[in-house]
Amino acid sequence: MTLCGHVHRRRELATVSFLVLRDRTGLAQVVLRPHEVPAEGLPPEETAVQVTGTATANAQAPGGVEITAPTVTLLGAPATRPPVELWRPDLDVALPTLLDHAAVTWRHPARRARWELAAASLRGFRATLDAAGFTEIQTPKLVASATESGASVFPVDYFGRTAYLAQSPQFFKQQLVGVFERVYEVGPVFRAEPHDTARHLAEYVSLDVELGFVRDHRDVLAVLRDVLAGMVGALRDGAGDAVERLGPALPVVPSEIPVIHFRDALALVGAADDEPDLAPEHERALGAWARSTHGSDFLAVEGYPMRKRPFYTHPQPDDPRWSNSFDLLFRGLELVTGGQRLHRYQDYVAALAARGETAEPYATYLEAFAHGMPPHGGFAIGLERWVARLVEAPNVREVALFPRDLHRLTP
Amino acid sequence: MTLCGHVHRRRELATVSFLVLRDRTGLAQVVLRPHEVPAEGLPPEETAVQVTGTATANAQAPGGVEITAPTVTLLGAPATRPPVELWRPDLDVALPTLLDHAAVTWRHPARRARWELAAASLRGFRATLDAAGFTEIQTPKLVASATESGASVFPVDYFGRTAYLAQSPQFFKQQLVGVFERVYEVGPVFRAEPHDTARHLAEYVSLDVELGFVRDHRDVLAVLRDVLAGMVGALRDGAGDAVERLGPALPVVPSEIPVIHFRDALALVGAADDEPDLAPEHERALGAWARSTHGSDFLAVEGYPMRKRPFYTHPQPDDPRWSNSFDLLFRGLELVTGGQRLHRYQDYVAALAARGETAEPYATYLEAFAHGMPPHGGFAIGLERWVARLVEAPNVREVALFPRDLHRLTP
Repeated sequence: MTLCGHVHRRRELATVSFLVLRDRTGLAQVVLRPHEVPAEGLPPEETAVQVTGTATANAQAPGGVEITAPTVTLLGAPATRPPVELWRPDLDVALPTLLDHAAVTWRHPARRARWELAAASLRGFRATLDAAGFTEIQTPKLVASATESGASVFPVDYFGRTAYLAQSPQFFKQQLVGVFERVYEVGPVFRAEPHDTARHLAEYVSLDVELGFVRDHRDVLAVLRDVLAGMVGALRDGAGDAVERLGPALPVVPSEIPVIHFRDALALVGAADDEPDLAPEHERALGAWARSTHGSDFLAVEGYPMRKRPFYTHPQPDDPRWSNSFDLLFRGLELVTGGQRLHRYQDYVAALAARGETAEPYATYLEAFAHGMPPHGGFAIGLERWVARLVEAPNVREVALFPRDLHRLTP
Repeated sequence: MTLCGHVHRRRELATVSFLVLRDRTGLAQVVLRPHEVPAEGLPPEETAVQVTGTATANAQAPGGVEITAPTVTLLGAPATRPPVELWRPDLDVALPTLLDHAAVTWRHPARRARWELAAASLRGFRATLDAAGFTEIQTPKLVASATESGASVFPVDYFGRTAYLAQSPQFFKQQLVGVFERVYEVGPVFRAEPHDTARHLAEYVSLDVELGFVRDHRDVLAVLRDVLAGMVGALRDGAGDAVERLGPALPVVPSEIPVIHFRDALALVGAADDEPDLAPEHERALGAWARSTHGSDFLAVEGYPMRKRPFYTHPQPDDPRWSNSFDLLFRGLELVTGGQRLHRYQDYVAALAARGETAEPYATYLEAFAHGMPPHGGFAIGLERWVARLVEAPNVREVALFPRDLHRLTP
């Protein structure tokens, strides 16, 4: 058989040499007798090679396959020594090294497996929504004004005038509910937030969903539940190797995600009843409570105070201090924000006026509502947070392919 | 039965009234006797409503379904009159009107069908590559330097320093071939080109593929062929309604895409043999030739002169004036650019030096090549060009959801 891959490991003993070959499916061991070693010596680790020889199963060999009587052909130049030893079972290096040398460090099987979880999650996300009649959309990342708050946008020099990078596809996905009823988008979003924390990125992948003809945010939450179940199913069925290699406990998605009202959540964690938001330690406590009380890795906190939510948020009908919105905690960390949106033009004008804003800068967005929009809502899942929480990575930068933050713009 | 949707058309006759209801699956006709008309009158066109009544098949009715004895409930405020009449079979309005009111004009069934072709194409693209062992990647759009040419990038104010919007995921997808062997990405790319033509956008959706362990660009072309076949298959199987509504002739993807060398292509169209590129009229002539000679809607032109291709292009081994790269023409229009890339570190250093550039600005990219890379190549398909050519839209702006160009940054 013929295999192509990178030299993962080379070992020269007195009478026999070994190459461990790595390709996208795993490892295989090549056994070379002295006369089978190429004239220029065994290729260094990471060199791209082709190996032709006799394959036999060998449970002792890395990857369970052994190639004997091999012919080894270099497919590129001999590789120079990588900045990290990729053949070691654990890639025990400091975060800056991991990130500075991303092109090489992602080759480590344990690291690569993490992205395989991300890729499988995307497949599960789309498959669930495709089956439920959603239409994929692709909306612009260059916009004329800030979406949600003026402070945290990146300005772009756009042919001599100022554009901004979209903080979310929120306005576009809502407009397109008027067209397709049910839409989703996977794409980059940009936040110029000067947070230097383990869970913030300046650019991340957002999994956005929006759907029309809902009763309220609970209908949205039911779709989110199915999406999460689809993502976990795709991990189980489509990334079994990666799951096995990394050993994360796949989350249990209950048939109905437990819900607690924000007001009750504050009381449960012993916070003051006028707190406008949940602190990270509150989220952790709620996560533990959901696990012990409901046996669930997920908990939806609904009813967040209107004053802390964006202007397009739908109030709770029986008490407009609260909102028909929710955050979803995954193992005690905020993973998803969602909820019902306003759908009447006049409600938008009033909501903006109440915040001291005019409708004019939002004219093209509000046009959708003037011309008939159904009750609707949606949510957004942060891909990197999802994977980080799955594999218990302490820093979200570890699971982004090439993370961007306050200080980092390369590689 | 209960249906939810928008009022597509209302008609009041002396003894009976009609509402045509539009939802994501199509149209249905609601017949109202005088006492069934809501007290406030028939809801205006585009209003979101719920209708409960008795459904019967009626081949004469729009959508083939008629609802009688209905109860009509408004789900939002009565809609104000749209800027275009969406119920007319053809949306015969000028391009600026079409684009300025995108939130509403996309609701027209014929217009919506165009995006349904785009969405189905994306499904076919991913399904083909998933089945062939490719890994989806998501790479950053904020980069520290220009990818392919310094002139046509958008600068971004990135926490007080200058970043740029990625013109393509080229450098990232190549680096990740060293990790996953075979990768693809669907995402936005940004071109600050001051072209004001019917086929250029400042932001468009790029379908990027890159794969390792190829012999040369012909292996890349074979994958491109399968991808196109998968996209056409998805249109046939997953967007049959939209195809039927729009009536485009689905392209025939031959089992092998015909190839002509650039040198021979120039001769065929009667161009001077030192022309560095094909003019649009040359592409059209070649498209007609491929159709008549090979019965193919596609033609690959290989061997473009090295001096016109980016520095990472692999030369043609037997004559390095030419390259192992290709453009794919679809019905006489450039749709795809692809080819084999350099894979040896020293070749990159030499190629950059030959263009008067140092390797230093490319250090993190070139690290992948220093540490072992296989022969590889890839391609990029422009989504909007693909759909525009499919439906014979004269302007690519007609098929982008919210196009961005030299003058347009809204809606």
